[in-house]
Amino acid sequence: MPDAIPTDSVGLVTPQKLHIDTPVTFESGRSLPSYDLVYETYGELNADASNAILICHALSGDHHVAGYHSMDDKKPGWWDSAIGPGKTVDTNHFFVVCLNNLGGCKGSTGPTAINPETNKTYGPDFPIVTVDDWVNSQLLLTNHLNIQQWSAIIGGSLGGMQAMQWAIKFPDKLRHVLIIAAAPKLSAQNIAFNEVARTAIKTDPEFHDGHYAVHDTIPRHGLGLARMLGHITYLSDEAMAEKFGRELRNGTINYGYDVEFQIESYLRYQSENFAERFDANTYLLMTKALDYYDPAQAFDHDLSKAFASITAKCLVLSFTSDWRFSPERSQEIVNALMSSGKDVTYAEIKAHQGHDAFLMDIPRYHEIFKTYMQRVLADGEAL
Amino acid sequence: MPDAIPTDSVGLVTPQKLHIDTPVTFESGRSLPSYDLVYETYGELNADASNAILICHALSGDHHVAGYHSMDDKKPGWWDSAIGPGKTVDTNHFFVVCLNNLGGCKGSTGPTAINPETNKTYGPDFPIVTVDDWVNSQLLLTNHLNIQQWSAIIGGSLGGMQAMQWAIKFPDKLRHVLIIAAAPKLSAQNIAFNEVARTAIKTDPEFHDGHYAVHDTIPRHGLGLARMLGHITYLSDEAMAEKFGRELRNGTINYGYDVEFQIESYLRYQSENFAERFDANTYLLMTKALDYYDPAQAFDHDLSKAFASITAKCLVLSFTSDWRFSPERSQEIVNALMSSGKDVTYAEIKAHQGHDAFLMDIPRYHEIFKTYMQRVLADGEAL
Repeated sequence: MPDAIPTDSVGLVTPQKLHIDTPVTFESGRSLPSYDLVYETYGELNADASNAILICHALSGDHHVAGYHSMDDKKPGWWDSAIGPGKTVDTNHFFVVCLNNLGGCKGSTGPTAINPETNKTYGPDFPIVTVDDWVNSQLLLTNHLNIQQWSAIIGGSLGGMQAMQWAIKFPDKLRHVLIIAAAPKLSAQNIAFNEVARTAIKTDPEFHDGHYAVHDTIPRHGLGLARMLGHITYLSDEAMAEKFGRELRNGTINYGYDVEFQIESYLRYQSENFAERFDANTYLLMTKALDYYDPAQAFDHDLSKAFASITAKCLVLSFTSDWRFSPERSQEIVNALMSSGKDVTYAEIKAHQGHDAFLMDIPRYHEIFKTYMQRVLADGEAL
Repeated sequence: MPDAIPTDSVGLVTPQKLHIDTPVTFESGRSLPSYDLVYETYGELNADASNAILICHALSGDHHVAGYHSMDDKKPGWWDSAIGPGKTVDTNHFFVVCLNNLGGCKGSTGPTAINPETNKTYGPDFPIVTVDDWVNSQLLLTNHLNIQQWSAIIGGSLGGMQAMQWAIKFPDKLRHVLIIAAAPKLSAQNIAFNEVARTAIKTDPEFHDGHYAVHDTIPRHGLGLARMLGHITYLSDEAMAEKFGRELRNGTINYGYDVEFQIESYLRYQSENFAERFDANTYLLMTKALDYYDPAQAFDHDLSKAFASITAKCLVLSFTSDWRFSPERSQEIVNALMSSGKDVTYAEIKAHQGHDAFLMDIPRYHEIFKTYMQRVLADGEAL
């Protein structure tokens, strides 16, 4: 909880809700009659709506990207290090928007929402949505906000895939795209980790085929395991070594199965309350959206062909110790953008923090990111 | 099942059992009044017992390292590619021994054995044993077989740690040590993966605090998850990409939570029967032995000091795509051996198979390994 809101914070913010009454049909063929999208905005939209930035969130993220909901909040939004007055994405100049994705569990319609046709929660019957479905729903919010063209769309990890899909699908809707710590599709190893996480959730007896709400329970252990495993892939071996090493929690080995090493204690702590703040069906759905994303597939697996439609200028950033989406995966994106003649800037940031680096306040990262945002600003002002 | 036993196989083999009636006290301070060690041997011990090779097994391995137990066996022992007449470890020349480690579940006394004091299975009450405890028990088998000095002790992964510990603790008991795809201690990331596996087992409601046998059940899901996760760390990203890529099992995406990608199918298959053939308490115990091993700890974390006692000649091998125990981890061993003035040969084998490469028939690997074994043979003959 902040004693006082820091001066470079967007301050106290209130989520807003857009109700959409037009039925939507998803890539899967399934549909919803209506739905809500919850979002937050920071900064002011200027008169010609040329300063709007869309932030896309990753697996367990949400719309609360910066600032505080109340003075009692222990932590600000998930990317507060990057967004605020005078910060990298400077809310003195930009109007920043972030929404909770459809299928999420933080206010936008998803498995925990009431299905108006049954008056029960959707639970496992909520349709699987894809990155493309998200981008389509994000366009409706764009129209609602009267934004003709985003100054930039920015995303890290799964958020980077959404930003990429925007650039491919709606090229005239954005001037810049920032794809950070992402990949053009998951590898077999990435899918394998997701499948272990899903299996942990699905085989938890409290999962009840996704109908845990009806049984007034949650698959706490399965979701906890998924979270522990996620954390291993978010951190680098190096970062874990630096942070925890082989340090023992109580200084001695106990020859038992309770927590002995600090790393065990950390993982247990990370997993313990996750089930209270995240929905298992949403977790499954988000991992599937990750697995499915593969824009090159419809173009004979030629990513440069998939990128042919792009008109946005592109910044691609990767981090040396990220082994979930390694620099090589970002380079695949960069190579395809270059070979299809796009305007692309690429930087590989030296960082020991692994995949999580994209959320961290790393000087060279934010220097490059901020410099690029000045270009984004100048392009908007030149319109 | 072999139509006929291959000519380069050690053939049909029968496990033997050594019963030890002398009580043993472990590193933990706990003890056993008596215990069995199950082992296999291949080839003939020569008159001066100078041609004996000890193989140490890894996490889920056992004493059945080569040959067949019956004509109905679908597969030979776990390292049959390396051991047999004319093979890398040539049983025409060497007498090869491998035992199931104490705490195992394949015949040596462990959690599934009957505790003579209670007439019930030990279950979770079996003491946690360490790499050092294993080496001590392996010495008793050594004495039983009238082997004064092993020609070589060979181990991969956790087996490599046992081989290393032999060289440190009983320097006059071996002339050569072969440490393959190993590490001098686990990293925080290694421990983290073990902790996720243990948590999966322990939070399975069928685990019953380790007393699943009393409840006539097994923690099938937990052990299956541990195995799935293990397989991800045994394979490289590259090997998975080559073997499975993003191939769909039925050619199309189903937008559901059943198996869709081939990699999911493979992991499910690997995990499904593991609980039938491996014991959960043994799995927990083996991962703890891995976590604890750290020979440098008692020497101010100076590995070269821990290695001061070594007199064996050393071969250290690593594999380029092994990210469980990367070449850098083997190089830590090599650097410490060199700085303490030991006779060490090191090779990093280019291989895309990840940690599992040490079990594979990779030409350059077996060429180096076999050439080294000729040196081992010559040293034995020169005695």
